[in-house]
Amino acid sequence: MKGYGITSLEHPSWLEKERPVCGPLDAIVKPVAVAPCSSDTHVMHGGSGEKVNLILGHEAVGEAVEVGALVKRVKPGDFVVVPCTTPDWLAPGIQGSLYTAHDDGMISGYKFVNSKDGVFAEYFHVNQADANLAFLPEGVSPEAALMIVDMMSTGFHAVELAEIGFGDTVAVIGIGPVGLMAIAGAALRGAGRIIAVGTRPASIEVAKSYGASEIVSYRGGDLAARIKEMTGGGVQKTIIAGGDGETFRQAVEMTKAMGTIANVNFFDMKDALNMPAFVWGLGMSNKDIRCGFCPGGRVRVEKLMELVRCGRIDPTRLITHKFRGFDKIEDAFLLMDKKPQDLIKPIVYC
Amino acid sequence: MKGYGITSLEHPSWLEKERPVCGPLDAIVKPVAVAPCSSDTHVMHGGSGEKVNLILGHEAVGEAVEVGALVKRVKPGDFVVVPCTTPDWLAPGIQGSLYTAHDDGMISGYKFVNSKDGVFAEYFHVNQADANLAFLPEGVSPEAALMIVDMMSTGFHAVELAEIGFGDTVAVIGIGPVGLMAIAGAALRGAGRIIAVGTRPASIEVAKSYGASEIVSYRGGDLAARIKEMTGGGVQKTIIAGGDGETFRQAVEMTKAMGTIANVNFFDMKDALNMPAFVWGLGMSNKDIRCGFCPGGRVRVEKLMELVRCGRIDPTRLITHKFRGFDKIEDAFLLMDKKPQDLIKPIVYC
Amino acid sequence: MKGYGITSLEHPSWLEKERPVCGPLDAIVKPVAVAPCSSDTHVMHGGSGEKVNLILGHEAVGEAVEVGALVKRVKPGDFVVVPCTTPDWLAPGIQGSLYTAHDDGMISGYKFVNSKDGVFAEYFHVNQADANLAFLPEGVSPEAALMIVDMMSTGFHAVELAEIGFGDTVAVIGIGPVGLMAIAGAALRGAGRIIAVGTRPASIEVAKSYGASEIVSYRGGDLAARIKEMTGGGVQKTIIAGGDGETFRQAVEMTKAMGTIANVNFFDMKDALNMPAFVWGLGMSNKDIRCGFCPGGRVRVEKLMELVRCGRIDPTRLITHKFRGFDKIEDAFLLMDKKPQDLIKPIVYC
Amino acid sequence: MKGYGITSLEHPSWLEKERPVCGPLDAIVKPVAVAPCSSDTHVMHGGSGEKVNLILGHEAVGEAVEVGALVKRVKPGDFVVVPCTTPDWLAPGIQGSLYTAHDDGMISGYKFVNSKDGVFAEYFHVNQADANLAFLPEGVSPEAALMIVDMMSTGFHAVELAEIGFGDTVAVIGIGPVGLMAIAGAALRGAGRIIAVGTRPASIEVAKSYGASEIVSYRGGDLAARIKEMTGGGVQKTIIAGGDGETFRQAVEMTKAMGTIANVNFFDMKDALNMPAFVWGLGMSNKDIRCGFCPGGRVRVEKLMELVRCGRIDPTRLITHKFRGFDKIEDAFLLMDKKPQDLIKPIVYC
Repeated sequence: MKGYGITSLEHPSWLEKERPVCGPLDAIVKPVAVAPCSSDTHVMHGGSGEKVNLILGHEAVGEAVEVGALVKRVKPGDFVVVPCTTPDWLAPGIQGSLYTAHDDGMISGYKFVNSKDGVFAEYFHVNQADANLAFLPEGVSPEAALMIVDMMSTGFHAVELAEIGFGDTVAVIGIGPVGLMAIAGAALRGAGRIIAVGTRPASIEVAKSYGASEIVSYRGGDLAARIKEMTGGGVQKTIIAGGDGETFRQAVEMTKAMGTIANVNFFDMKDALNMPAFVWGLGMSNKDIRCGFCPGGRVRVEKLMELVRCGRIDPTRLITHKFRGFDKIEDAFLLMDKKPQDLIKPIVYC
Repeated sequence: MKGYGITSLEHPSWLEKERPVCGPLDAIVKPVAVAPCSSDTHVMHGGSGEKVNLILGHEAVGEAVEVGALVKRVKPGDFVVVPCTTPDWLAPGIQGSLYTAHDDGMISGYKFVNSKDGVFAEYFHVNQADANLAFLPEGVSPEAALMIVDMMSTGFHAVELAEIGFGDTVAVIGIGPVGLMAIAGAALRGAGRIIAVGTRPASIEVAKSYGASEIVSYRGGDLAARIKEMTGGGVQKTIIAGGDGETFRQAVEMTKAMGTIANVNFFDMKDALNMPAFVWGLGMSNKDIRCGFCPGGRVRVEKLMELVRCGRIDPTRLITHKFRGFDKIEDAFLLMDKKPQDLIKPIVYC
Repeated sequence: MKGYGITSLEHPSWLEKERPVCGPLDAIVKPVAVAPCSSDTHVMHGGSGEKVNLILGHEAVGEAVEVGALVKRVKPGDFVVVPCTTPDWLAPGIQGSLYTAHDDGMISGYKFVNSKDGVFAEYFHVNQADANLAFLPEGVSPEAALMIVDMMSTGFHAVELAEIGFGDTVAVIGIGPVGLMAIAGAALRGAGRIIAVGTRPASIEVAKSYGASEIVSYRGGDLAARIKEMTGGGVQKTIIAGGDGETFRQAVEMTKAMGTIANVNFFDMKDALNMPAFVWGLGMSNKDIRCGFCPGGRVRVEKLMELVRCGRIDPTRLITHKFRGFDKIEDAFLLMDKKPQDLIKPIVYC
Repeated sequence: MKGYGITSLEHPSWLEKERPVCGPLDAIVKPVAVAPCSSDTHVMHGGSGEKVNLILGHEAVGEAVEVGALVKRVKPGDFVVVPCTTPDWLAPGIQGSLYTAHDDGMISGYKFVNSKDGVFAEYFHVNQADANLAFLPEGVSPEAALMIVDMMSTGFHAVELAEIGFGDTVAVIGIGPVGLMAIAGAALRGAGRIIAVGTRPASIEVAKSYGASEIVSYRGGDLAARIKEMTGGGVQKTIIAGGDGETFRQAVEMTKAMGTIANVNFFDMKDALNMPAFVWGLGMSNKDIRCGFCPGGRVRVEKLMELVRCGRIDPTRLITHKFRGFDKIEDAFLLMDKKPQDLIKPIVYC
């Protein structure tokens, strides 16, 4: 079968591979729509280490075409929503924690692109179909579901990590699709003032529609200093959804004592997360620094779809570009890599 | 000075009392606007036990006219927002808990009407003015602040107790002003489907505008059975904002295993909270049953005002009746007691 | 094969049944040692509803004699520790909660005796062997492991539900094996004063050795009143590990505002959990009422065995009677049912 | 009056100062016993910035000799236990958080040595005496109380921040008095294996008596690598109670995904807390990094004294050197600064 990915780092390409084999608990899914993500381009550029001959893609909705003998709930022909994180629910990391992305070691619950081929393929494999695949409820569009499986789930995880309380002042650094979802999630979680940091015009408009109170540019002097000035001393909660090691320092510094910094940004292997001790109150500030990976499983996605169904949020505002045809995956992926000013998120109908 | 309250149970009346004395940490406040609450009428009818010669009222915004020698922040002439709960922050119950209503014993942080005269007076006393009085920020109306000091704070406390997660299905029993605020708070906290239980037309309209997905009547058969049917087995979170002992049983029963029941309803001394063991899974269901009283202090009110200022919520939709003139407190109070169909919340400009 | 259980309610008996079939994820285990529990006798007497022709028993350590084709970790011949709760980890109730006993509905993660035959058999079935079976580490005896799988896990779950903080005053009602484990767990969690309620001499001695500060009898006047007097107003945390509907009322009443009541007692279908509204502060007290069922899975048991291995606790003090031989299960079970004064917990080496 | 402190950085000396003035909510206390702390020597060496003419010391038990007009509970002649952190309970940082050390800005609740003279004086000032001073219960020695006010409270705060669960594997870096208290606290909170890192023989013995399972030296190769090897991949919780910026990196690295790093070490203004992104799982690991300062107030100290009174812990094992006489404060302080091998904690009877 055909798939799109990399032959080696920096070499995106169409690949020819065997159709994946369906285990007894698993499903084989044919994608109906997929979306490239900057994590896919990150992999291509080597941000996650050496990879060869790998099909990319981890955001998809599709049709189950085959299910294993032990699968009870999902049936061939079902339209399925595929979480980007599909844990092995029988692994020990699931027990005693809600952070299901680490089923049997760090981020091991994230399988696509990480430990197996991704979803930019004629067929892809989903482990433990009953636990990992969700059905589309009436009132939720496939496009909305596609924005939920990683973007909304990851952005909302940032909000959960930040433990936002009613009326908290929140800074969100980065207004790519995950940052935008973090803004929407913060507003939907009862944040008061939300200060978004970013510059891309298309994103700024959506940021405001999702509840950003103000937009601050990365440019114009030290970000931490400016946000501390705007807020009379700092924010209660800071979400990092973009940036590098220096962003980390700024995030800790702009957060007040007893506040929380929540990171869902994928730092690069080369990044160093450095902070002078004083920005953390010499280790005495009661500032929590948290990070996380998108939780997995069907219930996560079902809960987020419920928010869409009940009209609490419309994640399709992220979609700026639509492609039609399986072979347009390449164009969408290369667009994601180039990141023109008017892009937030492209999708491809297969 | 003049105040409105009760000479004894069931005898509402204007009273003549001494102007309260200002302690060194305290303030004397002249009300600008007040709102009667069903807790005030509850007191009149003896729901909180025997009371005589007591000025009622615990929801007010006003002007500080005198402050004690040790008060640093509040000054005479300041327009102040008065939380209904004004804890003694030096008491031991404050330390080690966020439930500040119990500063030195159960609900002792609630002073007005409870351990001293209320706010339906020419002047009223506020203990620890710097810790308990908030200022009105630009962008928040006095009417909005007046709806915050008890109604929104209590309704939102229910939401906090319920520990609502993104996409949770929530039932809110009772759509008086506190129930309506609980609906708004649940929507603002990321609830999915919100099922509101009530029948008053004026409230139903506001409930929908605040985010209720459906309205269910108290009538039409066992409430728990109907909600379990509507939801395929029960809701994740139930908020009790009205009702009696039977409501308690229904609330526990309509909630799924691992769910939470959060009560902010003031039960009557005569109520018995009875449940057959099976509705609680014979004591094995991991259903949490929680209750609470409106937290106190200025920061609570400041945070909630921040939500209004940032446009996240408009609590003034609760206000259905406005009176002008200090002596209209009587009319407003008697209206609250009668509860006509078109009433949600009356206010009085003094 | 042979098993011990009930032909119908009130009719304990040896039964002849087919050896259970091993599914692809499962294991068949031959018991090495088992322990009867009052939950087993409860089932015999109909406390959990109608049951016929059912093998009893849910506390066992044993030898895996057969494993399914998809089992990777457990092998035939392995000595295995069997949690009393063995959830289906692929079910939706696992996702988004740590209360794994409710995998697909209330208490459905508890399979033995509940939805299938128990462990008092020549062979018994364990679903999802890799996720549910633990290995015995060096330094932990089989007897200790046998006391962990339900007694210690359930008693410690009570402590977790009670959210005991350093120095909290705790009441534990009931000093059967679960109550004793709750006492030990409370001490090991940093409780200050622990007041245990019970009368059986054998248990009293063990209660003291596990950290009970004082022992109070059920007799001698209203329990809530006496404990409130002893503590100057009530305890911060109350654990219910025995009793009936009246115990529930007492537990809520003896707990201070902002405190927690944690129940792990299996109430009877006929019990009514009744409280006058005032013992709950008319619904305003911020007293949390929680309950739960023993969490499942191998990691739970591994963590508790780690406590034994590191010398933090010795759960074998519960064992007062030892039987040798598979056919002594009957004697042990009937002893458990009779509950002589010197009994805490019997075990049977098979 | 006479006090011991610094005339300027690096110049410890006896000072002559005015006796402090007692405000209406405050008390003047005469020390009965005090203990120097490495935070005092840290101040002398400039670790907290420029300081001149300051009396040092923040650990004391004493006798109240004067109380303000508004003080109700404490009376002259009372023996009082003085928390090292004495928040202004009327300040806004108290409201909405349990981290009371930040009453009106970062660490502002820590007054002694920080914003006013310390306790190495004939008389010292305690703000808000009723909220901040505790009484010594029967069964607790003054020496035990003296070890509680900072050492035990800070060490136990580390344990609270680490959110230790039953059976968790914990690393404690540093076995000075705070690290030792963290070990004791971890054991008392239900930790399983506790790996302590340190080399001082006197401390090692006490560490073992408090529950350390193993002692690891700082020397012998990369600490993170060694602890990961010992534990098969890392610990669940790491407590930092000593060290520098490099310790921070090691702590994050030795902690597993979904684990927590809790710091109570006072880093130096010159320290840089640097970590390569990969030790934090590139920001995806769900490893929480937390820090904090000793919480304040009487209830905190009362709860910890309850642990001593009930025989759960004996903090006096920290005391290795006792001095008699107010003027021996100098010797004790200089000993603390020199840190001979046999020193854990010195105290002075005044």
